[in-house]
Amino acid sequence: MNRLIYYIVTLILTIGYSADSLAFQSEELVSSIEEFNAAVDNAEPGSVIVMKDGKWKDVALKFTGEGTSKSPITLKAQTKGGVTIEGESYLELGGNFLIVEDLFFTNGYTPTNTVIQFKSGRRIANNSTIKNCVIENFTQPDRDTDDHWVEFWGRNNALDHCYIAGKSNTGPTVRVYLKGNEHINNRHQIVNNYFGPRPRKGGPHGETLQIGDSYTSMTPSYTNISHNLFGRCNGEVEIISSKSNFNTFSNNVFFESEGSLVLRHGNYATIDANLFIGNDNSSNIGGIRVINTGHWITNNYFYKLTGEEFRAPLAVMNGIPKSPLNRYNQVTDVVVAYNTWIDCGIPWNFGVGSNVDQSEVLPASEIRSARAERMLVANNVIYSDRESAITRRYDSIDGVTFKNNTIGGAVVNDINDTGVLSNAITIEKKGDMLFIPKEKLDEVHMGFDFETIKTDLFGASRENQPRAGAVVIAPEKGRKLVDFSKYGPNWFEPKEENKNIPAITVSTAKALIDAIEKGESGAEILLEKGEYIFTKPLDITKNITLKAKSVKQKVKMSFNTEDAAFKMHPNGRLALENISLNGTNKQDAIRTLEKQMSSAYNIFITNSQFENFKSILQTSKSSFADTIQIKNSKFINFQNGIQLANETDDTGEYNAEFLIVANSNFENFQNSVIDYYRGGYDESTIGGNMILSGNTFSLSGLADETKILIKNRGIVHVTVSDNTFKNNSVDLIAVLWGEKGQKPENNKITNSGEFKIVENLELKLMY
Amino acid sequence: MNRLIYYIVTLILTIGYSADSLAFQSEELVSSIEEFNAAVDNAEPGSVIVMKDGKWKDVALKFTGEGTSKSPITLKAQTKGGVTIEGESYLELGGNFLIVEDLFFTNGYTPTNTVIQFKSGRRIANNSTIKNCVIENFTQPDRDTDDHWVEFWGRNNALDHCYIAGKSNTGPTVRVYLKGNEHINNRHQIVNNYFGPRPRKGGPHGETLQIGDSYTSMTPSYTNISHNLFGRCNGEVEIISSKSNFNTFSNNVFFESEGSLVLRHGNYATIDANLFIGNDNSSNIGGIRVINTGHWITNNYFYKLTGEEFRAPLAVMNGIPKSPLNRYNQVTDVVVAYNTWIDCGIPWNFGVGSNVDQSEVLPASEIRSARAERMLVANNVIYSDRESAITRRYDSIDGVTFKNNTIGGAVVNDINDTGVLSNAITIEKKGDMLFIPKEKLDEVHMGFDFETIKTDLFGASRENQPRAGAVVIAPEKGRKLVDFSKYGPNWFEPKEENKNIPAITVSTAKALIDAIEKGESGAEILLEKGEYIFTKPLDITKNITLKAKSVKQKVKMSFNTEDAAFKMHPNGRLALENISLNGTNKQDAIRTLEKQMSSAYNIFITNSQFENFKSILQTSKSSFADTIQIKNSKFINFQNGIQLANETDDTGEYNAEFLIVANSNFENFQNSVIDYYRGGYDESTIGGNMILSGNTFSLSGLADETKILIKNRGIVHVTVSDNTFKNNSVDLIAVLWGEKGQKPENNKITNSGEFKIVENLELKLMY
Repeated sequence: MNRLIYYIVTLILTIGYSADSLAFQSEELVSSIEEFNAAVDNAEPGSVIVMKDGKWKDVALKFTGEGTSKSPITLKAQTKGGVTIEGESYLELGGNFLIVEDLFFTNGYTPTNTVIQFKSGRRIANNSTIKNCVIENFTQPDRDTDDHWVEFWGRNNALDHCYIAGKSNTGPTVRVYLKGNEHINNRHQIVNNYFGPRPRKGGPHGETLQIGDSYTSMTPSYTNISHNLFGRCNGEVEIISSKSNFNTFSNNVFFESEGSLVLRHGNYATIDANLFIGNDNSSNIGGIRVINTGHWITNNYFYKLTGEEFRAPLAVMNGIPKSPLNRYNQVTDVVVAYNTWIDCGIPWNFGVGSNVDQSEVLPASEIRSARAERMLVANNVIYSDRESAITRRYDSIDGVTFKNNTIGGAVVNDINDTGVLSNAITIEKKGDMLFIPKEKLDEVHMGFDFETIKTDLFGASRENQPRAGAVVIAPEKGRKLVDFSKYGPNWFEPKEENKNIPAITVSTAKALIDAIEKGESGAEILLEKGEYIFTKPLDITKNITLKAKSVKQKVKMSFNTEDAAFKMHPNGRLALENISLNGTNKQDAIRTLEKQMSSAYNIFITNSQFENFKSILQTSKSSFADTIQIKNSKFINFQNGIQLANETDDTGEYNAEFLIVANSNFENFQNSVIDYYRGGYDESTIGGNMILSGNTFSLSGLADETKILIKNRGIVHVTVSDNTFKNNSVDLIAVLWGEKGQKPENNKITNSGEFKIVENLELKLMY
Repeated sequence: MNRLIYYIVTLILTIGYSADSLAFQSEELVSSIEEFNAAVDNAEPGSVIVMKDGKWKDVALKFTGEGTSKSPITLKAQTKGGVTIEGESYLELGGNFLIVEDLFFTNGYTPTNTVIQFKSGRRIANNSTIKNCVIENFTQPDRDTDDHWVEFWGRNNALDHCYIAGKSNTGPTVRVYLKGNEHINNRHQIVNNYFGPRPRKGGPHGETLQIGDSYTSMTPSYTNISHNLFGRCNGEVEIISSKSNFNTFSNNVFFESEGSLVLRHGNYATIDANLFIGNDNSSNIGGIRVINTGHWITNNYFYKLTGEEFRAPLAVMNGIPKSPLNRYNQVTDVVVAYNTWIDCGIPWNFGVGSNVDQSEVLPASEIRSARAERMLVANNVIYSDRESAITRRYDSIDGVTFKNNTIGGAVVNDINDTGVLSNAITIEKKGDMLFIPKEKLDEVHMGFDFETIKTDLFGASRENQPRAGAVVIAPEKGRKLVDFSKYGPNWFEPKEENKNIPAITVSTAKALIDAIEKGESGAEILLEKGEYIFTKPLDITKNITLKAKSVKQKVKMSFNTEDAAFKMHPNGRLALENISLNGTNKQDAIRTLEKQMSSAYNIFITNSQFENFKSILQTSKSSFADTIQIKNSKFINFQNGIQLANETDDTGEYNAEFLIVANSNFENFQNSVIDYYRGGYDESTIGGNMILSGNTFSLSGLADETKILIKNRGIVHVTVSDNTFKNNSVDLIAVLWGEKGQKPENNKITNSGEFKIVENLELKLMY
C-alpha cells in the first residue's frame, strides 16, 4: 500500500492533580481525502492527523471527533504552509477539542457557503481552534455569490494567528452565529489574526467580521476580538458589525481600513485599548459607530482619521423611537472615557443618522429622532494641529454629560460646558504615530463603575496613577505602535507588489498580444509609433499599462473585433496613455466578462482618444470597478458612454466605487454619456463616487429615452464642476441629490437642458 | 427636654478573619420626625434608629446613610408593627447597607409617586433591605392617580418577608427600575413576601410586580423573585410583568390570582419550581405567558387552571416580525421541561395573539405572525380527569419540538408526534392539591444544557434520579403544599372578614340611616314592612345589605333627594333585596362619588323594583365597580339606565368588571338602558364582562341619539341570550364584537331594531 503510516506515542508526564494530565499523542500522515477520512474516523483523543505537503484540490475536509481538553485531536500540515487547499474545497469541524493548524487556502473557493465552518452537518464544534492558517483570495468566481470564510457555531471556539485577506464577494469574511441556545454565551476567541486587505465591495455585506444578526441580537454572545490587525479592510462601511451582547473588542489595530467598528445591534460591548489609524489616507476610514445601550469605550487611540458622519472617529447615532428589531435603537447609558484623538477631523459626531427632515420620503418607523440619553463622555483628550471643532451635531446633545475632557492645539471648543477644558494640553511625540500630552492631567472624573477601568492603552495600571487620555505612561522607546509581524501565522508573509518590473517595448500587434499574455503583472508595455490592428479583443487579466513610447504622438490601435477592444477580467487593471483607440461601431471599447467577475478591476485612461465604438465601457451585473479614471482624453461617435448601471436589484450594490472624469471631451453620443446607479435605501450602503470636472459634453443624448445626459441615481458622492455642456438633445443634464450636498458648480450650459436637484431621493427600502 | 435618648453600645466579638467583624451598634429612640431626621443625620455604621410606637402621620421619612456590610444602619419600630405610618406619608432610602424593619403603612397614601423608594433625591440606595414591613390598603384616593408602593433603584436591594395588599389605584405595586448603569445587574432580592389581594383594577397598570420597561428591556437585571406568595392578586392580566433580562422566578406560589406571570419583554428568564394554583376558581386565573427569547420554564406545578388564550396555563405568543421595541418579539430558544399540569383546561396554548385575520383594522407593525421557533417542550406531565386536548393552537406549532412528554387520564393527545406519549400515566394523591404519577417515568430526554436542571419542585436532586414531571420524590406527608404562614412578617396576620355579624331590624327611616352609619360592615339591615321616606341620599361606605324582613312583600323606600338615593363610596357594597325604590325623576337611583373613588364598589339588586329616577346608576370617571348584579327586578320610567362609560381616554381603563343582569324588566327608558365602554387596543386590557339573560326591554331608547339600546363598545366578554326586546324605538339593540365570539342567542325581537355584529372592532392603539 502506498501509505505511510506511523505512530508516535508520547507519554507526557506532567506534575499535576489528575490522571487527565497523562496526555497521549498519535500522529498519522495522510495523503488523500480517503486517507484523511479514514484517519478522522479512527481518531481518538490525542490523535494528530498530518496532511501530506502538496496541493489538495477539490477536497471536502470534514474534521469531526471528540478530543479532550488535555488530549485534543489535531489536524495539521506536514510542514507549515506546505499544504495548499485549492479548487472547490472547504473545511468543516464537528465535535470537541479539535485543533487545525498551518493550512493554506488559496487558488479556489468554497462550493458551499463556508470555507471553514465550526459545524459539520448537524454536529456542532465546541472548544475547537483554527490556528496559524491562511485564507487568501479564496473568493467566489462571481462577486454576487454569497459565502463566509469562517463561520462560528457552538461555544469556546477560536480563530488564532490566522491571515485572511482578499475576499471580494458578498458576505462577511468571518461570521458568528447565535441561532440557538447551543451557540450563545459562546466566548469564542478571535485573537492575534491578521485581517489583510479586503477590497472595496461596492455595496453591503462586505464586513470583515459580523457577530450575530438582528434576529439574534438579544443573545449574550461574549465573543472576544482581541489583538487582531485589520489592515486595509475596505469592504464596506462596517469593518466589524457587532450584533449581539457583551462582546469585547480590545487591543486591536484598525489600520487604514475604510470603515468603522459598528455596534450595530446588541448592547454592552467593551471597546478598549484599540488603535484606529487613518494616516489621513482616506475620508472613508472611520472609527467607532455607536448604536444601542451600555457600551464602554475606553482607552482607545484615534490617529489622523478624517471621516465624518457615519464614518466619524466617534459617531453616535440617533435611534428610532421604539425601533423595530432590525433598525436603530436609541443610544443610552454609553460611557466614553479615557480615549485620545490626535490630529483627527471632527472627532465626535452626535445625532448621526438624524433624518427628521426626510419624513416625506420615509415611513415613520424609519425616522431617527431619538437622541443619545444618559451618555457620559469623560477624561478624554483631543489634540490637533489643525483647526477643527470637537463636535459635529446633527441633533441636540442634551442627553450627553461631559466631564473633565481636555483639548489642545488648534482644536476649537464648541461645547459650552465645564466638562471640556480648552487649551489645557500641549503634545509630545513619543514614537511613530504616538503623541501624548505633556501635562499630568491627573485630576480625573470618577464616574459610576470607573474603578473597573483598570489599565490604559498599553496595559499600564490606572490605580494610583490617574490620568486623562488613553495613555498613562508611554511605552519604552523603540516599541513600535503597530508591529505587523505580531499578527497572523509566523510562517506567512503577505506578498508585496513588485514595483520594479522592467518595461517591454513592442512594435507589432502580435508582440503586443504576446506581452499582454506573458508579461508580468505591473509591466509597462511601450508601443513604438505606428498602427496596431487587432481582430480579437485583448484580455486584461492583470495589471497592464499600454503607453505610446513617444509622448509626442499617440499610437493608433484599431479593432475590427466582435464584441470589444479590451476585455476586463477580475483583478485586471488597464492603463492607456497616449493611445488612439479606433473601432468599427460594432464593438465596445472596453467591456467586462459577462460572468465570474470575482474581483474588482481598474481602468485609467490618460491623454487618449476613443472613436467609433458602441460604448466606452459595458459592464456585467456583478462586475465591480474600484476606480475608473479618465483624464485629458476624447471620445467621439458612440452609441453609449460609461455604463455602470447593472446592479438593479436595489439591494445597495453598485458597479463602481470611483468614477473620475477630468478635462475630457465627449462628442456625439446617441444615448447618455454616463449611466451610474445605486439602488436601495440603507445607510450601510453609502457609496459610489462620481467626479466630473473640466469636461466638455456635446452633440449627445438624442436617442436617449429618459432625455438625461448623465445618470447618477443613488450615487452618494457626486461633484459636477467646471464642465461645458453644449448642444446636447436632452431635457436634463443630471438629477442631483440635494440632501447629500450635490449641486452643479461653475458649469457652462448652452442649448443642453438643465440640472435638476431633488432634495430627498425616494429609494426602495432594503429590508 | 421631652426626649428619651439612650444608647446601647454593643461589641459583638465574632471569630472571623478581619477587624470588620467587630460590629458596633448604637440604638436611638425617636418619637418625632425632627428626632428621626436628627438621628439619620448622625447615624454611623451600626446605628439603630428606633421609631417610637404609635401613629406617625403625614411623615416624609428620608432614611439615608452609609452603613457597611458588617455594620448596617437600621431603622425599625419600637415593637414589631407598633409603628403605623399613616396619612400622606412615604419612606425613601439613600446610601448603603440600610435596613428597615417592622413598619406598618396603613390608613393613608403617598403624596409622592412611591410609598417606599430605594432612592432619595439623587441619592441611590444600594445593598439595602426592607423586611418584615406591611403596606396595606395604602391606596390613592383616586383610582386614576398613579403610584408604586415599592420602587427599586440601585443594586443589591431586598424586599423580604413583607405583606403588601390592597392597591386599587393605577400603577404596579412593586416596580424595578433599570434606567441607568447604576441600576443594571441589580440582583435585587424580592423574597418571602406575601403579596395579598390586589383587587381587579379595570384596565392596565395593575401588575403586582413589574421589572423594567420596554425602554430598558435590553438591560441585564438579574432580579430574583423567590419564595413569595401571590394570593388573589387580581389587578390585571399580568401579575408579574418581566421586562428585562436574566430574571429568576422560583419557588413562588401563585394562589388563585387572576393573571399570569408574563415574560413581556427581555429574555433568558428562569421560571423554576413555582406553584400555579387556580382551584377552578375563575377562568381569569392564568399561568405563564411567554414572549421573547431563551427562557427556561422548569419544575413548575399547575393545578386546576381553567384560563385560556392570554390566560392559559402556558400561553406561548406569536410575535411581530421585526417587532418594535415595545411590542411583541418572537418566541425563540425557549425550553419548557419537567413541568406538571393537573386538572387544568387546555394546558398549552400556542400562537396566542395571532391576529393575521385583523389586518384590515391593524397596521402591519401590529400583526403577530411570527411563530415560536427552536422551542423545546420536554419531560412534562399532563394529567386531567376531564376530557381536554393538550394544545389550543392559534397558529402552526412547526417551530416547537416535543420530547418525552407524558399524558394520562382523560387528556386527549392532539399532537401527532412521538414526543407525546398517550395514556402513559395514572395518578396518585400525595397531599392537598398534590398529585403525582404512579409510574416511574425515568426515561427522560436530555436536551442541550438539561444537566443544569439539578433539582425538582421541592428541591430533590435530579442527578441519578431521572423522572419526568415537576416532582421526583413527593415530600414527606403532612407538609402543606402552600403554607400561608411562611410568607410576610410573622407579626402580622391579614384580617379575615367577620361573617357572623348579627342582623339589625329597623322600622323607621331614621333607624335605617342610623344602622347604615353605625352598623358593622357586613351587617344585614332588615326592614319591617311599610314606607321609608328620605330627603338625603344614603352613603354606602361599607358592606350594607337592605332587605325586606318579610320575603312576601317588598318594602317601599321613597327618595325626595337632590342627586341620588344611594351614594357609593370606595369599598361600598350595596345589596338590596325585596325593596321597592321610588324617586321623583330628579335624582339617580344610585351614583358614585364624583372623586376619590379609590377602591372598587359592588352592587347587588335582587327581587326589587326601581321607579322614576334619572338613572339606575350614574358613575364618575375613575370609579370602578367590581360587580354589578341585578336579578329578578324591574325598572320603570328612567331617563338613563346603567352608565359605565366614563373612562373615555382609550387607555384600556373601564368602569366595571362584571355587569350581570338576569330575569329583569326594563321599561320606558328615554335613552339607552346600558352604556358600558372600554377603549384602547392592547391585549393587556382584555376585560369587561356583560351577561344579559332572560330580561325584557321595552318602550325604550326613543331619545337616544345613537339609536342603540345597549351599548357595550370594547367590552370583551359579552353574552346576550334569552332576552325579549319589544317596541323599543332604536335602530340597533346592540353592536357585538364577532372576533371575540360575541353573538346574540335566542332573543325575541318585536319592533325593536336588530343586532349588528362587527367582526373586527377598530380601536385606538394605546401606544
